[in-house]
Amino acid sequence: MSKSSTVTVREKPVERVRTVSGGVTIHSETIVIDTDQRVELVDLTNTIMELVKRFKLSEGLISIWSMHTTCTLLINEFQTALLTDIKRFLEQMVARDADYMHNDPQHSDCDRQNADSHLRAMLLGHSLSLQISGGEVVLGQWQRILMAELDGPRARSLRVQIIGIG
Amino acid sequence: MSKSSTVTVREKPVERVRTVSGGVTIHSETIVIDTDQRVELVDLTNTIMELVKRFKLSEGLISIWSMHTTCTLLINEFQTALLTDIKRFLEQMVARDADYMHNDPQHSDCDRQNADSHLRAMLLGHSLSLQISGGEVVLGQWQRILMAELDGPRARSLRVQIIGIG
Amino acid sequence: MSKSSTVTVREKPVERVRTVSGGVTIHSETIVIDTDQRVELVDLTNTIMELVKRFKLSEGLISIWSMHTTCTLLINEFQTALLTDIKRFLEQMVARDADYMHNDPQHSDCDRQNADSHLRAMLLGHSLSLQISGGEVVLGQWQRILMAELDGPRARSLRVQIIGIG
Repeated sequence: MSKSSTVTVREKPVERVRTVSGGVTIHSETIVIDTDQRVELVDLTNTIMELVKRFKLSEGLISIWSMHTTCTLLINEFQTALLTDIKRFLEQMVARDADYMHNDPQHSDCDRQNADSHLRAMLLGHSLSLQISGGEVVLGQWQRILMAELDGPRARSLRVQIIGIG
Repeated sequence: MSKSSTVTVREKPVERVRTVSGGVTIHSETIVIDTDQRVELVDLTNTIMELVKRFKLSEGLISIWSMHTTCTLLINEFQTALLTDIKRFLEQMVARDADYMHNDPQHSDCDRQNADSHLRAMLLGHSLSLQISGGEVVLGQWQRILMAELDGPRARSLRVQIIGIG
Repeated sequence: MSKSSTVTVREKPVERVRTVSGGVTIHSETIVIDTDQRVELVDLTNTIMELVKRFKLSEGLISIWSMHTTCTLLINEFQTALLTDIKRFLEQMVARDADYMHNDPQHSDCDRQNADSHLRAMLLGHSLSLQISGGEVVLGQWQRILMAELDGPRARSLRVQIIGIG
């Protein structure tokens, strides 16, 4: 188990200033990620970087959207130690077994007992909009695109949309 | 009072892959939502879905922006039980009556005593950017677009911008 | 030290409805912000408003992206009293000195002891996407664009991308 964080490396560094004009291309597709645990952090960075390179749009935006209420997207470092801290923090901030109405059959027809997942998701958010410049995603050296599974294991659908100029 | 969550249904399901190119149209407008309580969750999903359909852009993005510091936007399930859990959680995480400088006339000229609203808003965020595909908003089955009023009742202005290809 | 919050004033108010069509221009550049404290809130509003005006795009979006894991972006009021409340709240919600694996040399090669910064960043988020209408950023009267330094003092790079129609 490495003590280090994964480093994000573009093929070429981001240029300081870039301006382009023209018509745009918009490409969308659905990707599916399988998770193994109830709470799990999955590193999507390489998947997203490759998808962006494949479309050969020089400048633009990429939106990543979780199609689920209890599966979220965030930016952070990807390091085993930190991932453990994040999971502990989520458990501490939103208790798994508090007295939630959403988990009470008298008030809710949901049988997943996942009120904690919904509350944790509310704090993390369901989408990211990243920039594309020079044909690659704009990310800092330690930034990784993470999916936070909050009620797995499950197959999770993400919708990815790229909008930009070629 | 229903035990069920509202289901989001598009006219047609999202296609797995979509690509379009061309000039774009950008449409913006302001909508106003009246709230009835100090803390209230309002389901905007149908309003936003209808607004998007009206503009007949096939692929693109919709940005929803709260014009206020103490009124936020988020994605979650819309179920009476869960809404109660969310409100309780916000109260528990950010106390209404702690010793805030923003509520102290010696340090602040704000007379709303709403430091808690500002702190809760910071955790939830003031905007959402959703995808449009096949002429409709991209949302999962249980995802609803919610406005969280954190210092009502008030009339709240939201700015909606659609950018896309027809 | 003022008791008042900074007011955001556009040259012209946002028009209720705006629609434009055509080719787009995408402009990106990196800006650097120096911070002085470990935890600090910096008001970027004027910088961003001037940058948008300089590009003379009538309608569109501006994305602001922090290139760092422990430096975030958010919307809130800019008032000395409230900034103090925000900093206290972050300290209370995520303890500086808890028993984090990321701060333990047995598990982590990071020597910054900044697990708290990573967890706080996760709650605040690393980017904002704002609307441009009538050639200016769309913001409510009390909304300010804030950068939250969570592990300073440091020089922080932000990537700004404007996409719109002139």
